[in-house]
Amino acid sequence: MELQQALEQLSRLQAKMAAYNHAMALIYYDGATTAPKGTAANRGQTLSILSEESYRLSTGKETVELLEFLDAHREELSEREARTVFLALKSIRELQKIPMEEYVAYQQLLVEAEDIWHTAKETDDFALFCPFLERIFAFEKKLAAYCAPEKKPYDYCLDKYEDGLTMEDCDAFFEALRSRLVPLIQRITAKEQLSNACLCGHFDDAAQEAFSLDLMRLMGIDLAHCGLGTTEHPFTTSLGSHHDVRITTHYDPENFASSMYSVIHEGGHALYDLNSDDELAYTLLDGGVSMGIHESQSRFYENLLGRSRAFVERVFPLLCKHFPEQMRGYTAEDVYRAVNRVTPSLIRTEADEVTYCLHVMVRYELEKRVMAGELAVRDLPAEWNRLYREYLGVEVPNDRRGVLQDSHWSGGGIGYFPSYALGSAYGAQLLRKMRESVDVDACLREGNFAPINAWNREHIWKFGCLKKPGELLREALGEDFDPLVYTSYLEEKFGELYQ
Amino acid sequence: MELQQALEQLSRLQAKMAAYNHAMALIYYDGATTAPKGTAANRGQTLSILSEESYRLSTGKETVELLEFLDAHREELSEREARTVFLALKSIRELQKIPMEEYVAYQQLLVEAEDIWHTAKETDDFALFCPFLERIFAFEKKLAAYCAPEKKPYDYCLDKYEDGLTMEDCDAFFEALRSRLVPLIQRITAKEQLSNACLCGHFDDAAQEAFSLDLMRLMGIDLAHCGLGTTEHPFTTSLGSHHDVRITTHYDPENFASSMYSVIHEGGHALYDLNSDDELAYTLLDGGVSMGIHESQSRFYENLLGRSRAFVERVFPLLCKHFPEQMRGYTAEDVYRAVNRVTPSLIRTEADEVTYCLHVMVRYELEKRVMAGELAVRDLPAEWNRLYREYLGVEVPNDRRGVLQDSHWSGGGIGYFPSYALGSAYGAQLLRKMRESVDVDACLREGNFAPINAWNREHIWKFGCLKKPGELLREALGEDFDPLVYTSYLEEKFGELYQ
Repeated sequence: MELQQALEQLSRLQAKMAAYNHAMALIYYDGATTAPKGTAANRGQTLSILSEESYRLSTGKETVELLEFLDAHREELSEREARTVFLALKSIRELQKIPMEEYVAYQQLLVEAEDIWHTAKETDDFALFCPFLERIFAFEKKLAAYCAPEKKPYDYCLDKYEDGLTMEDCDAFFEALRSRLVPLIQRITAKEQLSNACLCGHFDDAAQEAFSLDLMRLMGIDLAHCGLGTTEHPFTTSLGSHHDVRITTHYDPENFASSMYSVIHEGGHALYDLNSDDELAYTLLDGGVSMGIHESQSRFYENLLGRSRAFVERVFPLLCKHFPEQMRGYTAEDVYRAVNRVTPSLIRTEADEVTYCLHVMVRYELEKRVMAGELAVRDLPAEWNRLYREYLGVEVPNDRRGVLQDSHWSGGGIGYFPSYALGSAYGAQLLRKMRESVDVDACLREGNFAPINAWNREHIWKFGCLKKPGELLREALGEDFDPLVYTSYLEEKFGELYQ
Repeated sequence: MELQQALEQLSRLQAKMAAYNHAMALIYYDGATTAPKGTAANRGQTLSILSEESYRLSTGKETVELLEFLDAHREELSEREARTVFLALKSIRELQKIPMEEYVAYQQLLVEAEDIWHTAKETDDFALFCPFLERIFAFEKKLAAYCAPEKKPYDYCLDKYEDGLTMEDCDAFFEALRSRLVPLIQRITAKEQLSNACLCGHFDDAAQEAFSLDLMRLMGIDLAHCGLGTTEHPFTTSLGSHHDVRITTHYDPENFASSMYSVIHEGGHALYDLNSDDELAYTLLDGGVSMGIHESQSRFYENLLGRSRAFVERVFPLLCKHFPEQMRGYTAEDVYRAVNRVTPSLIRTEADEVTYCLHVMVRYELEKRVMAGELAVRDLPAEWNRLYREYLGVEVPNDRRGVLQDSHWSGGGIGYFPSYALGSAYGAQLLRKMRESVDVDACLREGNFAPINAWNREHIWKFGCLKKPGELLREALGEDFDPLVYTSYLEEKFGELYQ
């Protein structure tokens, strides 16, 4: 085989895999947004077949031979080609360890579980979801045993979302956060509470949607390549390449800030995906490199920018345009204080910046113990409620607002949650670095996201999966990651807000 | 190879093809409903790859050997198995005649053309669409030359939508219609015009959507398996099997009847698809057998039932519920007369029952002449306008409301239009037959579609593609097809309306 010929074959292979991913992601997106209620089994049937085809394609003999041939010539490959071959072989080695029937059965289970979770959440019925969640955890343990028998099962899960992450890292990271956040929360709760009256009222879906589109434009998201849908739980997905990205949100009719910050969060994910280097389209290197880096971007826009005084000042006229009645008598400063009100609460996606990581810690603890066999899935609701009482001091009234609130587990996302906390901490340090060359507050006040987005594109987005997450982060920061930059940022911001 | 083993292989093959069809139909549906504007090329890339995979799957060596083995054992097959093998071999023999690159290039062209057509229609710019339409007609001629060199190219096109249909049949059929309809239209236009004032006003999208869903429920459409979307041009599609069907409509803010009759029309298609025998799911026999039969069902619900006095009487309270202001002072009889107002007009989908077939004849004449090389694509607008003047006596003010109005050509649907007229005529004769055992008017007045749907399910829907369209129709009718049943129905109904 000629090298040139092999490289062309690699291109075609990647384009095919992108096409399967497009189809499967769209079927998932359709299920979450517009599909009629009774069609989950039909989607499950199709997804099981497409995932089988895609599995065969990416692990088949011909593919393995091609990749091994290229790997043997890695000295002659470009950086991009070498990284592609490395990642493809790594994922094949892993997939090869999983019997195909198991892989396919798991994909099908996830489609059904997604549907059942929706119903279970709607009807506040954990018992309905429990057998599916048991099978999902059991599958994850089985996958860990196949793919990384040398590791503890939960370390296998963590590594899937953040290359190299372990329970040891997480324990240390969360301990660092806890040691600073718990005293901060105590100081805050001793103070007079900020008012959030300006967030409440009646906000109809159509006005919220128009406001969401204005927010996306303001952030510099290209609406010709990024759509907005509504789902129970907001998410971002790319279809086939970074040329077609979809974000979703959920409108709370009584609080506009809920969807507003979902849109900005998912918009951050979308900006990352949309801005891969164009040459990466239809290749394995297209799109974000890890969930930690992805969350560093989404939570960067949502909180570090989105809940800053400068941004809220710029958004306030938009709020007045879309919700003139509801905003009457309020100022930008009222909104700024309201969206930064610290209050231990029930719902992770609506938590303030300070208590947010405690929500993540609850999930981390529970996943760790279920994966270690120390906690049964059926006992999750009781443990969830106990930990919310212990960490956040709140009583969970029902599973709908408790253990059933997130979609991640129904989609097999065990090990995902720590990325949110890590991403928040990465983001704080990235912002400190960005400020060395960009006057971020001035940009936000002017509604000029171009210099901010250009910095992120240059240091993070354009690389897609070309670099390892750790390397990418270190090069962008010019120093090692330090979680205390994040806690200092929180102490300073909320110190000022709560005096 | 064992017969049993071969049959199992056939099942798996069909399930795979259904999965590819699901993916491709959904990508198309997404493009028409919710995809961001700039993403057509991305969909084109994916569709070209999936159609190539699906082409390989359905015409590959292994598949051909399997089908030929089964064909050699056709005596031992069930009726369903034998029909499946026959249809699959027939379509392979046809596909094998088309070079794969051509097939794939055509699929990709259609995706781009769809997008360009939308823009061209919006901006009233035929010149933009013209080069694409030229390539589409050129491709159709090429396909005809590959697949049916013994036939005239347009006969090849007609046969694709109605098994065995020829220009000779169409000429005779349209001549029969013309000889009765032209004098009828002359008699009607000499009379005093019916008022359509009750249809006009302002009708917002949300209220029209709620009304649409009520209509679907009334028709007995299972909303757990049939979704409603909005698109420029209404259509119906099945995703993977008859367990997931989607219909779309287009809301005219100034005339509720436009979307109302689109919903009932597409709802008729949906009922046909949704009610294939369950055992046909994920097989080649699932869903409607030909476009003529399909249109016989859609136009049956839209006109024969939907524009009947009994149905309008039942729907009137729903209209008053959703549009209380707009309906004030009107009666069911006003609506009945308004939706049956005969008036030569510009837009096919909004035409009354009597002039409708003349719209179809314009398209038939034009397609016939372009396919015969007697008319250039660039001259279509002028010829379109001339024929509308000649057949319907109306002046076409712009291409947006003229030659650019339908989506069919941009999707490669050359030869499709005659199905609408044929279907209308089939439907009239089916209704006459149904009345022998079902009191249709009483059912409509009670809003009880069950006996009507049961008759259609028993005689048409459940068979899917098991029977040839001609055979299916003859067995349902218990007699030969006679277009004069349709013209008599029109003469009687509109004779009464216009005295």
